[in-house]
Amino acid sequence: MSSSVGENIRLTLFGQSHSPAVGMTLEGIPAGKKIDQEELYRFLLRRAPGRNDWSTQRLETDQPEFLSGLVNSVTCGTPLTAVIRNADTRSGDYASLKTVPRPGHADYTAEVKYGGHQDFAGGGHFSGRLTAPLCVAGGICLQLLLSEGIRIFSRICSIGGIVDDSCFVSPVSEKAFPVVSDQRGEEMKALIAEKKAAGDSVGGVVECVALGIPAGIGDPIFGGMENRISSVVFGIPAVKGIEFGAGFAASRLSGSENNDAFLYENGKVVTETNHSGGILGGITDGMPLVFRVAFKPTPSIALPQRSVDLSTGESAKLIVPGRHDPCVVPRAVPCVEAAAALAVYDAFLGRKREI
Amino acid sequence: MSSSVGENIRLTLFGQSHSPAVGMTLEGIPAGKKIDQEELYRFLLRRAPGRNDWSTQRLETDQPEFLSGLVNSVTCGTPLTAVIRNADTRSGDYASLKTVPRPGHADYTAEVKYGGHQDFAGGGHFSGRLTAPLCVAGGICLQLLLSEGIRIFSRICSIGGIVDDSCFVSPVSEKAFPVVSDQRGEEMKALIAEKKAAGDSVGGVVECVALGIPAGIGDPIFGGMENRISSVVFGIPAVKGIEFGAGFAASRLSGSENNDAFLYENGKVVTETNHSGGILGGITDGMPLVFRVAFKPTPSIALPQRSVDLSTGESAKLIVPGRHDPCVVPRAVPCVEAAAALAVYDAFLGRKREI
Amino acid sequence: MSSSVGENIRLTLFGQSHSPAVGMTLEGIPAGKKIDQEELYRFLLRRAPGRNDWSTQRLETDQPEFLSGLVNSVTCGTPLTAVIRNADTRSGDYASLKTVPRPGHADYTAEVKYGGHQDFAGGGHFSGRLTAPLCVAGGICLQLLLSEGIRIFSRICSIGGIVDDSCFVSPVSEKAFPVVSDQRGEEMKALIAEKKAAGDSVGGVVECVALGIPAGIGDPIFGGMENRISSVVFGIPAVKGIEFGAGFAASRLSGSENNDAFLYENGKVVTETNHSGGILGGITDGMPLVFRVAFKPTPSIALPQRSVDLSTGESAKLIVPGRHDPCVVPRAVPCVEAAAALAVYDAFLGRKREI
Amino acid sequence: MSSSVGENIRLTLFGQSHSPAVGMTLEGIPAGKKIDQEELYRFLLRRAPGRNDWSTQRLETDQPEFLSGLVNSVTCGTPLTAVIRNADTRSGDYASLKTVPRPGHADYTAEVKYGGHQDFAGGGHFSGRLTAPLCVAGGICLQLLLSEGIRIFSRICSIGGIVDDSCFVSPVSEKAFPVVSDQRGEEMKALIAEKKAAGDSVGGVVECVALGIPAGIGDPIFGGMENRISSVVFGIPAVKGIEFGAGFAASRLSGSENNDAFLYENGKVVTETNHSGGILGGITDGMPLVFRVAFKPTPSIALPQRSVDLSTGESAKLIVPGRHDPCVVPRAVPCVEAAAALAVYDAFLGRKREI
Repeated sequence: MSSSVGENIRLTLFGQSHSPAVGMTLEGIPAGKKIDQEELYRFLLRRAPGRNDWSTQRLETDQPEFLSGLVNSVTCGTPLTAVIRNADTRSGDYASLKTVPRPGHADYTAEVKYGGHQDFAGGGHFSGRLTAPLCVAGGICLQLLLSEGIRIFSRICSIGGIVDDSCFVSPVSEKAFPVVSDQRGEEMKALIAEKKAAGDSVGGVVECVALGIPAGIGDPIFGGMENRISSVVFGIPAVKGIEFGAGFAASRLSGSENNDAFLYENGKVVTETNHSGGILGGITDGMPLVFRVAFKPTPSIALPQRSVDLSTGESAKLIVPGRHDPCVVPRAVPCVEAAAALAVYDAFLGRKREI
Repeated sequence: MSSSVGENIRLTLFGQSHSPAVGMTLEGIPAGKKIDQEELYRFLLRRAPGRNDWSTQRLETDQPEFLSGLVNSVTCGTPLTAVIRNADTRSGDYASLKTVPRPGHADYTAEVKYGGHQDFAGGGHFSGRLTAPLCVAGGICLQLLLSEGIRIFSRICSIGGIVDDSCFVSPVSEKAFPVVSDQRGEEMKALIAEKKAAGDSVGGVVECVALGIPAGIGDPIFGGMENRISSVVFGIPAVKGIEFGAGFAASRLSGSENNDAFLYENGKVVTETNHSGGILGGITDGMPLVFRVAFKPTPSIALPQRSVDLSTGESAKLIVPGRHDPCVVPRAVPCVEAAAALAVYDAFLGRKREI
Repeated sequence: MSSSVGENIRLTLFGQSHSPAVGMTLEGIPAGKKIDQEELYRFLLRRAPGRNDWSTQRLETDQPEFLSGLVNSVTCGTPLTAVIRNADTRSGDYASLKTVPRPGHADYTAEVKYGGHQDFAGGGHFSGRLTAPLCVAGGICLQLLLSEGIRIFSRICSIGGIVDDSCFVSPVSEKAFPVVSDQRGEEMKALIAEKKAAGDSVGGVVECVALGIPAGIGDPIFGGMENRISSVVFGIPAVKGIEFGAGFAASRLSGSENNDAFLYENGKVVTETNHSGGILGGITDGMPLVFRVAFKPTPSIALPQRSVDLSTGESAKLIVPGRHDPCVVPRAVPCVEAAAALAVYDAFLGRKREI
Repeated sequence: MSSSVGENIRLTLFGQSHSPAVGMTLEGIPAGKKIDQEELYRFLLRRAPGRNDWSTQRLETDQPEFLSGLVNSVTCGTPLTAVIRNADTRSGDYASLKTVPRPGHADYTAEVKYGGHQDFAGGGHFSGRLTAPLCVAGGICLQLLLSEGIRIFSRICSIGGIVDDSCFVSPVSEKAFPVVSDQRGEEMKALIAEKKAAGDSVGGVVECVALGIPAGIGDPIFGGMENRISSVVFGIPAVKGIEFGAGFAASRLSGSENNDAFLYENGKVVTETNHSGGILGGITDGMPLVFRVAFKPTPSIALPQRSVDLSTGESAKLIVPGRHDPCVVPRAVPCVEAAAALAVYDAFLGRKREI
């Protein structure tokens, strides 16, 4: 089922941009785990819209209500379901889109797939709004991983051609604009402002690091950490690429350059370099797990665009209505952490245990 | 289960590099489909080793034996199982690896995961040999897709820093070295030969195109074509990145540049450009589906490497034994086609049908 | 995941007896299907408590709220989620059960499984209350099946030793007490009243019939209609047995008696008898699909019972608090229909279609 | 996929009665487990045909060849695949069945499902021959369970109307005819011989007991032990019913009779009676797990039967060719053990572990 993912834990997302609510069910979380709901809400605020210049002005409190699975904020072993009401919906904005699909959006492909029965308001189930319940699930997994000594954090790696090329080894999540080099961050914000002013948008890359994963997590072939993480990450709208460790750059290296030599450090096996991104044969080697995710520019732009009118079979000009981010990347940072946390915690629960 | 993948069809790979056989079971193929076994074998030969300068000298006939699922080469609706015997195994080559893991391989991570019980001979279940049954399954799907008007083909996009930058719109599979520009191909072969002579190896990128997929194939969120394809592709050893359409380059574009305008062409909705790689919201839009896969350089190199001896807890020098490709990319080309065919046929079987 | 079931459609149940809500998510329902919510509510009322002498006096409106998946009561192709608020909860009733498990209930096994973190109020996730969202899902499937010409209906087959031995070929669902022979129904009601007066309870058998399923639905081995139906039916609390067609009685017959001869009737293949219950090799043969489900007597009885006190390690006397049905069978009748509808519609969606 | 089953371990069966081989792949078995292949073969011989008066005279050595997953008879953590060659096939016997379906068999339903492309020889994938690889998988699980202190064994409970009503608390597997009362066994054998002489067949019931399962195994709702066991057991051909503990008889009891009182015995919680069959809320309570399975009489009988000729649309007389058991129950005894072992070991691997 395409709205579900996971093996040892299973996440199901439901809801549309303008349905009564969006939400998630998370099955398989062990019993007896304390969920800090305030901490979770702080995490969700990092994704929530309407808080600054570079995000949509749609206002949602995004406060999840837990319907099941918790007793006094402790998991009871059965499915966790949380819902977030959709309050600030303006379906009227979308009436014109019924027949003229927005370029870069799923309007046309959903029309073909669902034969005209899709919920076209606000992008329906394809809306970025579905990342809110994804972050509820991921925020829970982040807490559970932290209690196992595993920390996951992300940064904006680039916006357009501007790259945050500083070394990324510790969290920058407390920053409103999560980059290592604030100078680069200012340049990025200026670029976003410039694109916004021009009625345009811009893409970027998010980098994610997981520290503290023990060696031996993940599985061969289709159960590798790369397969698992990409299965979830491509569920975030606008993602068009992913690479692990040296990634595409590894394709330009020699084996003697790319291989990470093993050595002992304080009695523990480590590697001298980390071109593999902490994954060998799909399985963690105990080094930092590192990956980068490419986001395309927001397809909703204020500039007029060319499209077709499916009702007349003719060309059409389109002005996209609604409120949109000129760049999804800043708000995507916690979404990538959430996706990574889900995949990592799922694999972690499947680790070898004595039987 | 990590050796299985798929939703409407399900592939399970089994076997180790030096077990009696490797093989595959493919469930869910509709009844009444003719499988051309000679055509399948020709496809498998494109992956088979020992045929030229840039592949391992291990010789295997790689002829699959079908144990079930076929009656006179026509599918009968129940699981297809095919096995390929492992003939030319030299387990003695690997005895020294029991305690000294090869850099860039799964030796160390498998040791941790399986507690020393892994099959270390030839990489066990992690071996590139498992791509032989992957190609059996993929070769079957390629035939079934072709009968639906869908054609999938790949090329070597780059080796090291040498890029085949010619336009790629039709198959080059009949070439021994599948590139569009033979001039670039010669440069690539020279680079591979040079690395081989130096006891080293080199990586590269494979590009894959699927033509003829109707619009409306694939599903939202976790069932998108990107999720589906990457779930399979990361099952090929040495893959470290994947991108769809403009991919990472899209992160450097504006929305006005990256959005693909819709227009009518002969009464059919098409897009003017194809930065999306034929996928919007995870669902095909009827344009060519395009993706690229990054392969790291073969980790097995002849040069001495630094590793650790897990039995003594000390540093160790390692000379990797066995026979290996100085570059896996040429033989990976049909593997990428196989992976794509599996994912696309699986999604295709799930398409909307009147009920 | 144990709270989910299904292959082509997937149902997930969530909630506990005394959590804010119980609910369900149903994935895979095709787009464009009209759901008659009034008809659905009428179906739910057949299961709802507090309406007569033989059911618990707990009062719940049991009105589902659809949070997603519908646009103007028509499915839009993405997950359907509905929730039912838990209004009339009296958790105080259950405080004493924390340490003294009720015989015949899951209190003890949940304690062991969840290490004391289970939601013990009202049976938590094990409560019969979870059959409310099961009936939401099943009620939807019943409507969708009806539009395909498939009708599913059940009756009370026996209560205690009293058997409704009349022929069962058309629905009796409009009756408050769904039996064919009202005379037998009166005897059954008298028996239930007698047991209730004695502070005791009684079990029974429900029979279910599905008419109009075309031949060829279901799959071999583990995907047979028997496997599929029993997978769902055993999800209803208190079910301890299931049999198809002649069932256990078939074990006492000869092959020549039990085999159903094929013959042509109006140009259609039918069988002369229907000992197989409409299923051969797991696949429907076009005859009525028939099965029976055994329910144990309600374990919650007013009589004092012997148990143990897990906190002291000593014997304990127990008076079960709360409000309970002296016989679950009448309210289980729509639950069995719901379970059957889910399994049948799931298999129906997987039927052979031209490709 | 209908030829696969399981959650923590996953079994896939492949092969047809007359294909080159039948076989199985078992994924998820932990690494480092010793498999005693002689012990396994002894178990398979209990199911193998041709060894006495009450089984088919088809002769097969039924010796499995392991192709993967083992290194020196120890599991290496990756998929176990074993195949059994089909040697003594006489496809000619079945030529006449192409158009005249055998009553009680899947010939007609497979014809409809697969549109005439099914493998009709010997029942194809629906053949009882597929229980050979089921027993390979189950035999492995029986060994692994035994090393955990869990013992599973079955008996013939009844043949036709003759019931082995002795108490069943320890294995009778060493007997050629596995009943507790040999006197009843003689009567059963006489009945089978009588039916055979008359060209007829007879059904029966198998009872299975699992001792030593700790409390807390299994899951709520659809993951209960009843759901899990019936999902596998209905994969054995000819099964038409299953009941747990008191089963159908419980439907005739009062709650005060059926509830199993808890008490302490040697400091351990036990129940005074075991009407629940060791399962409460789908989860084991530490008492013996008990269930019974109803088998219909072998549909292949020597007596002439009435059927239809699908090629002419007319009635037809049929004499079933081939070699068949007059009663499948004796050979089904190890199959039921195998099915139970699979389901129990699967649930056992999912038990609560500290995280």
